[in-house]
Amino acid sequence: MEKYIYGIDVGGTTVKMGLFHYENMKKIDSYEIPTPNLEDGSYIFKKIYESIIECNNRHSIEMADLLGIGIDVPCPVKNGYVESCANLNLNEINLVDEMKKYTGDAIKIAIANDATIAAYGENASLESPYQNAILITLGTGVGGGIILDGNIIEGSTGFGGEIGHIRVYEEEDKVCGCGSKGCLEQICGTKGILDYTREQLKKNESTLKEEDLTVKSIFDAAKQNDPVALMTVHRVAKYIGIAASILSMTVEPEVYIIGGGVSKAGLFLIDLITEYYKKNSRFSTGNIPFKLAQTGNDAGMIGSALLVKSLNKKNY
Amino acid sequence: MEKYIYGIDVGGTTVKMGLFHYENMKKIDSYEIPTPNLEDGSYIFKKIYESIIECNNRHSIEMADLLGIGIDVPCPVKNGYVESCANLNLNEINLVDEMKKYTGDAIKIAIANDATIAAYGENASLESPYQNAILITLGTGVGGGIILDGNIIEGSTGFGGEIGHIRVYEEEDKVCGCGSKGCLEQICGTKGILDYTREQLKKNESTLKEEDLTVKSIFDAAKQNDPVALMTVHRVAKYIGIAASILSMTVEPEVYIIGGGVSKAGLFLIDLITEYYKKNSRFSTGNIPFKLAQTGNDAGMIGSALLVKSLNKKNY
Repeated sequence: MEKYIYGIDVGGTTVKMGLFHYENMKKIDSYEIPTPNLEDGSYIFKKIYESIIECNNRHSIEMADLLGIGIDVPCPVKNGYVESCANLNLNEINLVDEMKKYTGDAIKIAIANDATIAAYGENASLESPYQNAILITLGTGVGGGIILDGNIIEGSTGFGGEIGHIRVYEEEDKVCGCGSKGCLEQICGTKGILDYTREQLKKNESTLKEEDLTVKSIFDAAKQNDPVALMTVHRVAKYIGIAASILSMTVEPEVYIIGGGVSKAGLFLIDLITEYYKKNSRFSTGNIPFKLAQTGNDAGMIGSALLVKSLNKKNY
Repeated sequence: MEKYIYGIDVGGTTVKMGLFHYENMKKIDSYEIPTPNLEDGSYIFKKIYESIIECNNRHSIEMADLLGIGIDVPCPVKNGYVESCANLNLNEINLVDEMKKYTGDAIKIAIANDATIAAYGENASLESPYQNAILITLGTGVGGGIILDGNIIEGSTGFGGEIGHIRVYEEEDKVCGCGSKGCLEQICGTKGILDYTREQLKKNESTLKEEDLTVKSIFDAAKQNDPVALMTVHRVAKYIGIAASILSMTVEPEVYIIGGGVSKAGLFLIDLITEYYKKNSRFSTGNIPFKLAQTGNDAGMIGSALLVKSLNKKNY
């Protein structure tokens, strides 16, 4: 009898639903439903359950054929518990318990932070997955996930792997979204990249036009040796390299994986980060490789499905 | 029949040997032997074995009564393997295998980095040990150890928990012992503390005399509100607080334990570090407590003994 798992990636706007074969992880179906932005955020689990039933029906799958449902959410999570998730209107709630209200106890449920789950999925999707890996995602924000001995690191209340809020530079006037200063995200998040480039455009010659400025246009211009774009890109690479040098002195992974929208800059970015990492790395840790994330938009679905699959294997 | 374990703390000058009851961890005997600084560093394991035999004889203990031997060494270790340990003249060698040449396979052997083992021992010695703890040791150097889910974190080649080499400030001219710049140790190690204080003495009034300057005299003067001593002590506390804020965004422990010689400054230091930690902490992680290490000079012996005891419990 075939067995199945769901991998579900919950964002503030849409919920990406993925149905996978349990054994070979082949994707059978995937689609999006809108995130219900209701005052009672827990309604989302009813919606997810109803969507699972519909999807099951389309593929003639019974609930008894499901071995697990993995879900990622955009907030800190510890063992399924969420203290506060502003994007989803969830407060002081155990999400695994919420999901089980609908599915019952027979189906394994795994719920964790989205970047942490992406780290799990990206590493597991590598040709030879590592036991110890760190994903750094570069997008609107800078996120991350840490895998040690094959397990996700949530930290004591869910803030493990919040790499975007590692302090990498001396305090300045600007305050980060987290309320503090000097965070990696302030330099390497979209806003940091655009703000810094705009400042430099005032003082330097460039092919970039302020009115058309996007992260993509900056990286494209940098590849064409535009001086301002190069300044921005080197700054981003430098501080990612510094943050990684710090992570090597804390948990020392075997690989760094770079994901998120900004990572579309590709090997150009990876090579620059590697250069700055080597400059800042300590002892013999300079040889830890940097790789590009591979799973793209499906990272959350695949990671969620793989995480709940690992729970089954461990027979939790 | 009573069972016993040894906890052994190997330093560059002396080897501290401790014999403990297995069940209640009561210390039966402890003493020091000189570290044999021979070209072939592996000779130390023969010395340790001979010393164990002698100690066993003094207490009428048979080798068969030993359940384990735990050993810490002052260098990075990964699963017993050491790439290079300058202090002990050891290179590319598996220390567990070396010890087993003498003891055979029946007795469990655990060998790990000294600060990592101290972290394990300090946490296990707390009234209520935590599952996730970080020890920061302040002495000649700045070291550390990370415990996650009750296990030591060695990193992929042994550099896990090298907290002294987290980059906490912008590059300057001075180069750290590790060859890099901006390390926590450059500010908070003995040399960093003395150098900074000497510089400030040139520019400021103080009760401190340059010729009598020690870390202890600086902390004592700070407690008496000496302005230069206060500058130094605040600087140390600030950067320990910043490093901890970074660690909270990577592995988010439940407690920070401050050990090493400098920690003799006591609650005065803990309170200052806590103040700077809270200022620099992100999100809700500001409430993670700071505690003083308790085991003093015995940390290595106790930690080593406890680590090998944990291997027995896991039935490795």
